[in-house]
Amino acid sequence: MNPIHADLQIDADWLLRVRPQAPLRCHSVVVTDGLIVDVLPTVEAAARYAPRRRADMTGHIVLPGLVNAHSHAAMTLMRGMADDLALQDWLQGHIWPREATHVSDAFVFDGSLLAAAEMIRGGITACCDMYFFPDATARALRQSGMRVQLGLPVLEFPSAWAPDADGYLERGLAVRDRLRDDPLISFSLAPHAPYTVGDAAFARIVTYAEELGLAIHTHLHETTDEIRDGIAAHGSRPLTRLNELGALGPAFVAIHAVHCSDEDLDLLAGHACHVVHCPGSNLKLGSGIAPVSAMLACGVNVALGTDGAASNNRLDLFEEMRTAALLAKGMAHDPTALPARQAVEMATLGGAKALGLDAIIGSLETGKSADIIAVALTSPELSPIFDPYSHLVYAAGRADVSHAWVAGDCILDNRQPTQCDLPAILRLAQYWQEKLK
Amino acid sequence: MNPIHADLQIDADWLLRVRPQAPLRCHSVVVTDGLIVDVLPTVEAAARYAPRRRADMTGHIVLPGLVNAHSHAAMTLMRGMADDLALQDWLQGHIWPREATHVSDAFVFDGSLLAAAEMIRGGITACCDMYFFPDATARALRQSGMRVQLGLPVLEFPSAWAPDADGYLERGLAVRDRLRDDPLISFSLAPHAPYTVGDAAFARIVTYAEELGLAIHTHLHETTDEIRDGIAAHGSRPLTRLNELGALGPAFVAIHAVHCSDEDLDLLAGHACHVVHCPGSNLKLGSGIAPVSAMLACGVNVALGTDGAASNNRLDLFEEMRTAALLAKGMAHDPTALPARQAVEMATLGGAKALGLDAIIGSLETGKSADIIAVALTSPELSPIFDPYSHLVYAAGRADVSHAWVAGDCILDNRQPTQCDLPAILRLAQYWQEKLK
Repeated sequence: MNPIHADLQIDADWLLRVRPQAPLRCHSVVVTDGLIVDVLPTVEAAARYAPRRRADMTGHIVLPGLVNAHSHAAMTLMRGMADDLALQDWLQGHIWPREATHVSDAFVFDGSLLAAAEMIRGGITACCDMYFFPDATARALRQSGMRVQLGLPVLEFPSAWAPDADGYLERGLAVRDRLRDDPLISFSLAPHAPYTVGDAAFARIVTYAEELGLAIHTHLHETTDEIRDGIAAHGSRPLTRLNELGALGPAFVAIHAVHCSDEDLDLLAGHACHVVHCPGSNLKLGSGIAPVSAMLACGVNVALGTDGAASNNRLDLFEEMRTAALLAKGMAHDPTALPARQAVEMATLGGAKALGLDAIIGSLETGKSADIIAVALTSPELSPIFDPYSHLVYAAGRADVSHAWVAGDCILDNRQPTQCDLPAILRLAQYWQEKLK
Repeated sequence: MNPIHADLQIDADWLLRVRPQAPLRCHSVVVTDGLIVDVLPTVEAAARYAPRRRADMTGHIVLPGLVNAHSHAAMTLMRGMADDLALQDWLQGHIWPREATHVSDAFVFDGSLLAAAEMIRGGITACCDMYFFPDATARALRQSGMRVQLGLPVLEFPSAWAPDADGYLERGLAVRDRLRDDPLISFSLAPHAPYTVGDAAFARIVTYAEELGLAIHTHLHETTDEIRDGIAAHGSRPLTRLNELGALGPAFVAIHAVHCSDEDLDLLAGHACHVVHCPGSNLKLGSGIAPVSAMLACGVNVALGTDGAASNNRLDLFEEMRTAALLAKGMAHDPTALPARQAVEMATLGGAKALGLDAIIGSLETGKSADIIAVALTSPELSPIFDPYSHLVYAAGRADVSHAWVAGDCILDNRQPTQCDLPAILRLAQYWQEKLK
């Protein structure tokens, strides 16, 4: 039998498909036309396939690319500008004034280039981003090789991007019309939060979401103040209000969801909603700790997000996996809570589900896109190795990511992003640093 | 005026002396005979000193070497061997049986070599280690270039190292007699915990500590079970019992101290004791979260420790700084809790104080030992930069450490440990991996 032609074969020491969960030793992933066409033992692959390229990942863990289910990419330009401050000082004294003065197509494009370099070097191959000038974010992330979901932002408040809720919707949907032919770009509607978007606008968003088949991503129950103020303004908790507006369903994604009552959990689970857990940001801003174990126990899909680098200050899903797993154990006084395998699933398949892309990415299965990363095991920090899931969550860091592919294209080669001009990006960061100071 | 001869001049873009806290730009540290002899602007250093070697740390933050105030270095060989398990399963089903079978001079030496490589690459220049065969740990860490405090272990239970409490004390003090002439080795007494060391042995340890001028390091109040069982066995909380035995004072170091009542905090503060906070280990084992902000508020010196890699699973003080700062904010719902500068101080000067070495290390001041590290700022992950303390705690990772010096000797040069044979160490890790499986 003649060997079958293929574009790429990745030979992995340890292969984690995520679904099914069991690790495989010495297996290969075969890729053609950007899709995974086979997963099989490397010794069998050698006989069956004739790949044009072969990636020898001896001494590596190979797994699905990580999915950052909540980012504000452009805010990397404000990384570390204002830390250890009360939330209102931080927003009103530092972030909002800078945004009012500086946010523009150029700011968002440059900041998103910086974010893409960081995310790619950290094994993030896809993100759902929410910010002004989403077309600039799309250009920067696609130019860098990433898959992106644009959360089209909606606020009642004017910005350089749009004057009011209708304006945001109009500009956002125009971006969608322009970019929808790129198979690596998808879209969701991103009303900023219950406290920045009124009932009428939310109702329109719900209508558009249904008509266009788009998910709704919104910041929700991030702080106790938000809930208290929401009850004062609307007579009900924000999640309850959104349910009354018809927003909840399997395409509703609650970002943060730090403060959830039992009724909130019932609503989220009953409507098959998703949660994006951002533990680093929630701790750093003093928001609190989301009840992730309870969410998982009642069947809510939980993804992981970095939030923006102005609050986190890193776009690092290795850190979020570790923080999520450790926090769940510490809060429950139970070391069996949120095991490593579940943390890895949240950062991959959980994220894919929250983005509505789990038919395409999130696990290494035949027919899915070849969005894949490799983590090098050759350092003392990762020796010895008994369980690859444990190493990813508890011992490894983003600096151990060596390779990344999106739809079969190599976008990180031995720590070097192949489509990012790092010296130019660092000059841009320096330029904005001087301007923002 | 002729320039003054010096051994080494380190030119720093950002210099963090820790004490005083204010960052300096474009300053140099001048070193002779292993000691810091001057800290001054680089432009002035150029005129005043003629150093034999010069380290150009443009694009770096230079700060004191990190002090890991609690480690079990040899346990790196059991990294990731058993995770996500209940504490008793973990100890009785996995760790203790392996220790009973395998712990030996060779195990401890090999594991400590691996730990030293990891710690040095992560900017840790000194640690206080507590394990069997402390002389093997000393050989490995000193061979690798680190400064080490040996916590001489005492337990009532037999091991390959000693048969009973008296035996541990005897062997430990013999190690001290053999090694005390090495200026980079210091000693403390390390009764394992209140529940593994009885009153008589503790009383002897207190006497030895006073006679020999040694500190006492002990695991304390790590879990609620420990306190409950302590009360059942002795009629008082473990810390109260140790106070009655005369153990508390400025040379008493409580490791973990997760569960502290107001009375416990009063005892610790009133006796000027130290706490080693190990947030990663405490979360991962489900022990809980130490009330660090309360400790700091009542004046207790708090250091940071990694604990052993079998529970953590990393010897990484960057991670502990970040976790400590984030947890304190999240628990208090206050983003101003435990600011970045305080986390860096805990990892440097706080550790030095806990080891009784703050006259020698922990800050970059004239007359102190040149135990210094440099963190490279040249990556997208650390761009832009507004505040170097913020970057160290929130954005950087151990992989950003580029250089380390101990007493003026370079032990990490551009990410390469100068005194570790990494290929040989990885082969040893592989050997023990097969043996322990």
